[in-house]
Amino acid sequence: MALSVEKTSSGREYKVKDLSQADFGRLEIELAEVRWCSCNIFSTQDHAAAAIARDSAAVFAWKGETLEEYWWCTERCLDWGEAGGPDLIVDDGGDATLLIHEGVKAEEDYEKTGKIPDPESTDNAEFKIVLTIIRDGLKADPKKYRKMKERLVGVSEETTTGVKRLYQMQETGALLFPAINVNDSVTKSKFDNLYGCRHSLPDGLMRATDVMIAGKVAVVCGYGDVGKGCAAALKQAGARVIVTEIDPICALQALMEGLQVLPLEDVVSEADIFVTTTGNKDIIMVDHMRKMKNNAIVCNIGHFDNEIDMLGLETYPGVKRITIKPQTDRWVFPETNTGIIVLAEGRLMNLGCATGHPSFVMSCSFTNQVIAQLELWKEKSSGKYEKKVYVLPKHLDEKVAALHLGKLGAKLTKLTKSQADYISVPIEGPYKPAHYRY
Amino acid sequence: MALSVEKTSSGREYKVKDLSQADFGRLEIELAEVRWCSCNIFSTQDHAAAAIARDSAAVFAWKGETLEEYWWCTERCLDWGEAGGPDLIVDDGGDATLLIHEGVKAEEDYEKTGKIPDPESTDNAEFKIVLTIIRDGLKADPKKYRKMKERLVGVSEETTTGVKRLYQMQETGALLFPAINVNDSVTKSKFDNLYGCRHSLPDGLMRATDVMIAGKVAVVCGYGDVGKGCAAALKQAGARVIVTEIDPICALQALMEGLQVLPLEDVVSEADIFVTTTGNKDIIMVDHMRKMKNNAIVCNIGHFDNEIDMLGLETYPGVKRITIKPQTDRWVFPETNTGIIVLAEGRLMNLGCATGHPSFVMSCSFTNQVIAQLELWKEKSSGKYEKKVYVLPKHLDEKVAALHLGKLGAKLTKLTKSQADYISVPIEGPYKPAHYRY
Amino acid sequence: MALSVEKTSSGREYKVKDLSQADFGRLEIELAEVRWCSCNIFSTQDHAAAAIARDSAAVFAWKGETLEEYWWCTERCLDWGEAGGPDLIVDDGGDATLLIHEGVKAEEDYEKTGKIPDPESTDNAEFKIVLTIIRDGLKADPKKYRKMKERLVGVSEETTTGVKRLYQMQETGALLFPAINVNDSVTKSKFDNLYGCRHSLPDGLMRATDVMIAGKVAVVCGYGDVGKGCAAALKQAGARVIVTEIDPICALQALMEGLQVLPLEDVVSEADIFVTTTGNKDIIMVDHMRKMKNNAIVCNIGHFDNEIDMLGLETYPGVKRITIKPQTDRWVFPETNTGIIVLAEGRLMNLGCATGHPSFVMSCSFTNQVIAQLELWKEKSSGKYEKKVYVLPKHLDEKVAALHLGKLGAKLTKLTKSQADYISVPIEGPYKPAHYRY
Amino acid sequence: MALSVEKTSSGREYKVKDLSQADFGRLEIELAEVRWCSCNIFSTQDHAAAAIARDSAAVFAWKGETLEEYWWCTERCLDWGEAGGPDLIVDDGGDATLLIHEGVKAEEDYEKTGKIPDPESTDNAEFKIVLTIIRDGLKADPKKYRKMKERLVGVSEETTTGVKRLYQMQETGALLFPAINVNDSVTKSKFDNLYGCRHSLPDGLMRATDVMIAGKVAVVCGYGDVGKGCAAALKQAGARVIVTEIDPICALQALMEGLQVLPLEDVVSEADIFVTTTGNKDIIMVDHMRKMKNNAIVCNIGHFDNEIDMLGLETYPGVKRITIKPQTDRWVFPETNTGIIVLAEGRLMNLGCATGHPSFVMSCSFTNQVIAQLELWKEKSSGKYEKKVYVLPKHLDEKVAALHLGKLGAKLTKLTKSQADYISVPIEGPYKPAHYRY
Repeated sequence: MALSVEKTSSGREYKVKDLSQADFGRLEIELAEVRWCSCNIFSTQDHAAAAIARDSAAVFAWKGETLEEYWWCTERCLDWGEAGGPDLIVDDGGDATLLIHEGVKAEEDYEKTGKIPDPESTDNAEFKIVLTIIRDGLKADPKKYRKMKERLVGVSEETTTGVKRLYQMQETGALLFPAINVNDSVTKSKFDNLYGCRHSLPDGLMRATDVMIAGKVAVVCGYGDVGKGCAAALKQAGARVIVTEIDPICALQALMEGLQVLPLEDVVSEADIFVTTTGNKDIIMVDHMRKMKNNAIVCNIGHFDNEIDMLGLETYPGVKRITIKPQTDRWVFPETNTGIIVLAEGRLMNLGCATGHPSFVMSCSFTNQVIAQLELWKEKSSGKYEKKVYVLPKHLDEKVAALHLGKLGAKLTKLTKSQADYISVPIEGPYKPAHYRY
Repeated sequence: MALSVEKTSSGREYKVKDLSQADFGRLEIELAEVRWCSCNIFSTQDHAAAAIARDSAAVFAWKGETLEEYWWCTERCLDWGEAGGPDLIVDDGGDATLLIHEGVKAEEDYEKTGKIPDPESTDNAEFKIVLTIIRDGLKADPKKYRKMKERLVGVSEETTTGVKRLYQMQETGALLFPAINVNDSVTKSKFDNLYGCRHSLPDGLMRATDVMIAGKVAVVCGYGDVGKGCAAALKQAGARVIVTEIDPICALQALMEGLQVLPLEDVVSEADIFVTTTGNKDIIMVDHMRKMKNNAIVCNIGHFDNEIDMLGLETYPGVKRITIKPQTDRWVFPETNTGIIVLAEGRLMNLGCATGHPSFVMSCSFTNQVIAQLELWKEKSSGKYEKKVYVLPKHLDEKVAALHLGKLGAKLTKLTKSQADYISVPIEGPYKPAHYRY
Repeated sequence: MALSVEKTSSGREYKVKDLSQADFGRLEIELAEVRWCSCNIFSTQDHAAAAIARDSAAVFAWKGETLEEYWWCTERCLDWGEAGGPDLIVDDGGDATLLIHEGVKAEEDYEKTGKIPDPESTDNAEFKIVLTIIRDGLKADPKKYRKMKERLVGVSEETTTGVKRLYQMQETGALLFPAINVNDSVTKSKFDNLYGCRHSLPDGLMRATDVMIAGKVAVVCGYGDVGKGCAAALKQAGARVIVTEIDPICALQALMEGLQVLPLEDVVSEADIFVTTTGNKDIIMVDHMRKMKNNAIVCNIGHFDNEIDMLGLETYPGVKRITIKPQTDRWVFPETNTGIIVLAEGRLMNLGCATGHPSFVMSCSFTNQVIAQLELWKEKSSGKYEKKVYVLPKHLDEKVAALHLGKLGAKLTKLTKSQADYISVPIEGPYKPAHYRY
Repeated sequence: MALSVEKTSSGREYKVKDLSQADFGRLEIELAEVRWCSCNIFSTQDHAAAAIARDSAAVFAWKGETLEEYWWCTERCLDWGEAGGPDLIVDDGGDATLLIHEGVKAEEDYEKTGKIPDPESTDNAEFKIVLTIIRDGLKADPKKYRKMKERLVGVSEETTTGVKRLYQMQETGALLFPAINVNDSVTKSKFDNLYGCRHSLPDGLMRATDVMIAGKVAVVCGYGDVGKGCAAALKQAGARVIVTEIDPICALQALMEGLQVLPLEDVVSEADIFVTTTGNKDIIMVDHMRKMKNNAIVCNIGHFDNEIDMLGLETYPGVKRITIKPQTDRWVFPETNTGIIVLAEGRLMNLGCATGHPSFVMSCSFTNQVIAQLELWKEKSSGKYEKKVYVLPKHLDEKVAALHLGKLGAKLTKLTKSQADYISVPIEGPYKPAHYRY
C-alpha cells in the first residue's frame, strides 16, 4: 500500500477525504501543532477532518478507511519526523499506545535476537497489519519507537477497551509511560456510555433503517452502562426489550426496570432488533443469525466488530450480501431466502450509521481528556506519575460536571459550614467517597 | 416556468430528481396505471420516486421543489390527457382537491362573466401560483376541471388540514364529489399523528442538528395528538418539556404527564428547542425568536410553515441567514449577533430533515386509504355516498389494526358468545361505540 | 334482615359505622337536605360518612356492607317519606336507577296481573335481593316507585356500567326519565378511568400486599382507559406488563407502548400479578387460577366482581380460604397446596384495598355531576331533555378542565381573533369537534 | 422511666405492643436464641414483633416508642445477663454499636477519673438519653460494656449513616471490633436505596395523604440513590420534579433525566410535595415551610428527622399542630392561617406512614447481612478481620443477586472459556472491577 501524504498551502501534512469541505465543518479550534488520526475506520466526519487539516493541525483520517489505511494513519500520526514523536497522547481505543508498545517490543527483540516481526505469525488479520507496519519501520529506523517512548510524557485514554489494555500492561509491568484513565471518570463513563448511547443508538437505527422502534421486540446483549443506555432508549421508544447478561447484579438491575432477562438462544427467532453492547466477543454468531426473522436488524454499539460473528456470516456458504446503502447491508441465507440487516459491518453502529455521540457528551469526555493532559504536563518532571494507570481525582471529575451545568440552566445548592462538617466533606467538595457508584 | 415532462423507455411520463436512482429504493409496488405527485415540496424521497417512475407509474415529484414546481406537478398529476382525469384521488393535504374545486369555480365564473382568474387579486404567494395555473389552463381548455369533476368518483383524504377543508366545503355546499375522511380513523389519527411524530420528531432533530435532547428545555406548542407524540418523545429522551395550549382539556392532560403548561411568552428565553404542532398559524413570531437563547432550535411538525413566522424572520431588518446544511439554517439577529436554528424553512421538519414517518405508521394510514378507495369504487354507482364527507366505519378501522398485529407478534383474545352478549357487541366487532376515545 | 335507622340529635336519619368519627373526617360540605348511600359494599370511608351524617345529610353507608345491607341502604336512600322521593339522582353505577326501573316494572306488572316479584325466579344472588326489596315494598305501597318516577327530574350517571344500562333502556324505550351521561365527558372518562386507576391500582396493591412491583410480570386484562392507566402504572413501577385484548385497535395501542399482547392462557402460569379491567365477565376463571404461580395476586379494578370467577373459586372442591387481613385472602388449592392472593373478594380493589381515586380525580368527576345536575334542574320544565341519554356539551367539559388548571399552576394560551377564525373555532371554545379523541 | 420486661410462657423475655397479635404476622423464622430491638421509633410492625416474641426470640420493639423507650429497648437488647452480651450484632443505623462504644468510653473514663457521664453536658436531646442509660448502667456494673466488647466477634451494618460512623471510628482508631459494611454492596445500596425508595415513597405519600401525584410539582432534596429512586417514582407518577443538589455530578445526572436543578429557595413557594433524601441536616427549615403553599406536603426519607427543621417548626410562635391521623400532621402558621402537612414527624416517612421497603428489597439486604455474619463467625479466630471496616467481596455481592433471579424468572447467559479469557474474568465471576459503578 502506498498512500501519499498531502500538504496544505502552508505545508502542513494531511490525508483526508476532501479538503474542499473545510469551510463546511470549520470548528473554531485553536491548537498547538498536533497530529490527529481516527480511532475507528468509520468514525471520521470528513468535513470536520477537512477543516482541521486546512486550518489547524496535521490530520490523517477519513470515513471508510481500510484497516491498512487505518494503521497507516496511526503510524503517520505518531511520526513527528525530527521531533521524534509526540509529548502526550490523547488516545481513544488505545491503538496509538498499542503501536508504540508493540514497536518497542519488536525493536528490543530485534536488537537482542535479530528477529524481525513476522506478520504471518498471527491469525488476527488486524494484528498482521500492525506487525507489517512495525516490520517496515524497523528497517528504516530500528530505534524509532524507543525514541518515541523516551519523549512521551504520558497518555490519557478514554475507552473501556483501551483502559483494559493499560491495566493489563500495568499488571505485567509492560507499561512504558504513565497513563491516566479518563474512561472511569463518572463524567466520562456514565455520560459517554449511558447517556451517549441512549442518544445515538436510536439515531443510528433510524438513519440506517427508518425502522419504527415502537412495537418491536429488541434484544440488548449486555446491561452495563452502554446496554443500560440502549435498553432505556429502546424501551422509551416503545419497544419490548429483552436483555442478555452474564452478571447477576446487572441482570437484577434489568429486571428492576421491567426488562426480561433471557439467553439469546431463547429469543433469537422472536426479536426484531439485536444490539450488542458487551465489550466481549462471539455474542451473536452466524448460527443465531440464521434463525432470526426476515429483516431482523443486527448491530453492535459495544466495542469491536467481533461482538458479531462477521467472519462466520461472510463465509457462510451461499450467503448473499445486498448493500441497501453504505453501512446497511442485507445478508440473505440460501436455505430460507430470508435475510437480516447488519449495520456498519458489525462495527460501532452509532459511528458508522449516525454521527456518534452528541457534542454535549463529547464535551464531557474531552474536558476530562484536557484536564488529564494538563495534569500530566504539569507533573511531567515531578515524579508524581509513575508508569502506572491513574484515574482522575474526584474533585476534577466534579469540576467537569460543574463546567457543564450552566449550559443546562441548573443552579447548585451550597453547603453551609455546619452541614459540611456534619457529613465530613469540604464545602467545595469532593462530596463522595471513592467507591460511590452514582 | 417551463418544466419538461420526461418519458421512460416504455413511454411513461415522469419528472423526478434522478431516474438512475430507481434501483436504489425499488419498492415492490404493483399498481394499475396511476399518477403521483408530492404533497409537500420537501417530502419526496428521490430514490423512491425514481423507482416508481421507472417501473410503475407516472410520477411528478422531487425533494426541494419550488412552490411553482410543486403546483405544476399537482396539475400534471391531474392531467390524464384524453382520459379527462382520474377516477379516484388519494389526497394528502387536499391540494389536488383544492385545485379541482378552484378550477371548477374559475371555469364557471369565466363562463358566466368572462372573468379570468387574477393572481394579483391575492396576497397569498402560494394562492397566486394556484390562480396562475388555473388561468393558464383556462385558456387551453375552459372545461378541463369540470370534465375532471364529472369523471371523479371521489376522494379519500388523510390529513387534518385536508379534512378541515372538506368539512368547510361540505358546510357551504361547495363539495363537488364524495369524500372519505380517513384522517379520523383511529388507526390513522393516533398512529400517524401520535406514534408517527413520537418517532420522527427526534429523528428530524438528530439528523438536522445532532443535538443532545437530554438535559434540554423543550417547548411543544399544542398538545393534540401530534403534540402528545412530540412531548412524549422529548420527555423520554430526557428533555424537560413545557407545553403551550389553548384548550383546557388538553392542558390538563399535559399536566397529568408531568409537563408544565405555560404561554410561550413566559418561557421563550429559557428553552433550547421549540416545536410547533398546532395546525394553527402565527404560533412563534419573529418577536419571540429575537428573545430566544443563542442557537435555540425552532421547528414545525404541525402543518404549514405559517405556524412559524417565516415571513417576519426573512424580512427582519439586518437578519442574516447562514445555511449550515440543506434544511438547517442559522438566522442571526443584528442587535445581539446571536442566532437561532430554523429547520426545514419552517415546513414539516420530519419530512424536511428526516424521512417522515416510518413505514409501519404509513402502512396503517395507507391501509385506511386503500380500504376507503375500495369502498368508494365499490359503491360508485349505488348512491351510497353523496357529495359529503364520511368517516370509515369502525369495523374497517378495526380491520386495519388487525392486519398489523401479526407483524408485531400479538395474539388477540376471542370473546365468547356469552361475553359478547353481556357487553352487547358482536363477537367479531366492532367493539366500541362511535364516541369511544381510545 | 331488620336494620334500624338511627337519628342525629337534630332528627336526621342515618345508618353509618360509627357516628363518633364525625369530627375525624369532617368535610366542609354545605348541602341542601340530600340522602346518600354507597355505590359499592366496600367503598364507604366510614369517617367521611359519619361527618356527613352528623352535620349535613341523611346517609346510609358503611364499609363492608353485606349485599342485603347494600340494597337496604339504596332503598332507604330513595325513601323520602311524604316527599315521595328525590328530585334528582346523582348515580354511580346505576343501582338507584335500576331499583326505580325494576320497581316501576313490578308495580305495573302487579297492577295488571296481580303477580308479585319472585326472588326465586332468578339465579343471580344480587338480583334476588333486589326482587325481595321490591316485593316487600309492594306490599306496603304498590305505587311507591311510580310516585318516585313522577317526581324525578332526571339522573346523572358517571360509570361505564351505569351508562351502558341507560343506553340499553333508551334503546328499548324503557327509560323513565332524562339521563345525562357524565361518564363520557373527557374530564370524567380519561381522568377517572385513566389517571385515577394509574394512581389507585398501585396504591391498592401496595396496601393489600406490600408487593414490590418492580421485576414482576403483570397481566392486565383489557386495554381500555382503565387498562391503559393500570398498565402505565405497572410499567412505570418496573413490572413487565402483558395485555390481553379482544379489540385490535386497543391491542395495537398496547404494542406501541412496548407491551406484549397475548391471550391469558399463554401467560397464566408465568405472571405474578393479574388485573382485570374489562367491564366484561368471566375473564379470569378458576381453571386459570389453578394454574397460577404460588402467591400470584389476582384483582379486579374494572367493574363487577364477575370479572373474576369468584363463584368458581369459592365452590372449588377442597379449596381453603385464609384471610390474611380484611380484603386480602389467600386461596389454597388442594391438589398443589399452593395458593393465590385475591384482593377485595374480586370487587374493585382500589375501593376495597385502598381509598379509591384521589380527590383531584373525584373533583373532576363531581364537577361534571354538579354541572349536569344544574343543567337538569334549570331545564326541568323546558322540555329540552326527553327520556333519553345525553352527554354534556363540550364547552361544559372544557369548563370542568379549566376549573382545575389553577390548582396545578398552569396558564393557558389565548387565541387571537385571527387564529380563531383560521381554525374556525370561537375564541372562548369549544375547541374540538365532537369526534375528537384527546 | 420504669418499663417492665414481660415473659412468654416459655420464659422468653420481651416487650412488644400486643403479644396476642403473634398469629397475625407469624413469620416462619427459625433462629438460634437472638435478641431484637427496633432501629427506629416508628419502624416496628407490631404483629411481626409479636410473632417473633411468642415463637422465636427475645424482642423489644413496638411502633411509636418514645426516644427513652427506644434506647431502653436497645440496652435491653444488648443485655444478655450472665452471657455478658451478643456474639455478633446485625446493626441497622449503628445505635447498638454506638451504645457499646459510648459505654466503653464512659467506663474507661470512670475507671481513670471517677467521672460519671453527665446527661446535662449535651444539648442533643437524644444523646442525653444515651448518657442517662450509660450512667445508670455504670452504677450497676462498671465493666458491663467492656465485657460485651470482649465477647463480640463483630458487627455488620447496613445503613449509610451507620457505616459513616464506623469509618469515622476506624479513622480515629476508636473502633472496638471488626465491622462489615454491607451498605455498600450493590445489592444493598442500589436495591435498598434506589429501588426500595422508588417503591416506598409513593406508598407512604398515598397512605398518608391520598394525594394525586400526577400534575403536582415535587421537590426532591438530594439526588443520591435515595433521591434517584424518589425522583423516578414521582416523575413516573406524573409529577414535575425539581431536584436540589450540592454535587455537580449528581446534578448533571438529574438533568439528563429531564429534571430541573434549582436551590430550594427558588421553588419553595411553587411546589406541592417536598422530600428530603440527603443524609444531611437542616435541609428544609421553618423559614422555608412558612413560604410554602397551603397544604404542601413535607416529608423525609433520607435519614434522621433533622433533615427537616422539626424543632424550628414545633417552637414557631403561634404555630398550631392538627393531627389528621397518626403520622400525618397539619401545621398551621399564625400569620397566614395556612398550613403544611408533615409526615411521620419528620422521620422516615416510608417507615412511619407505610410499611418500609417491600420484602424483595429487604431480602436482598438481609441476604447481605446473613452472608456477612456467616463470614464474621467463620473467621472469628483466624485473624482475617481486624478492628476495621470491610466491604463484602464482590463475588458474594453477585451471589446475593443470583439468589434473587429465579424468583423473577430470569435466566443468565454463561460465558464460554474463550470469552472469559478474552475479558480476563473467571467464568464464574466476579465479573467487574472493584470500581465499577453499575
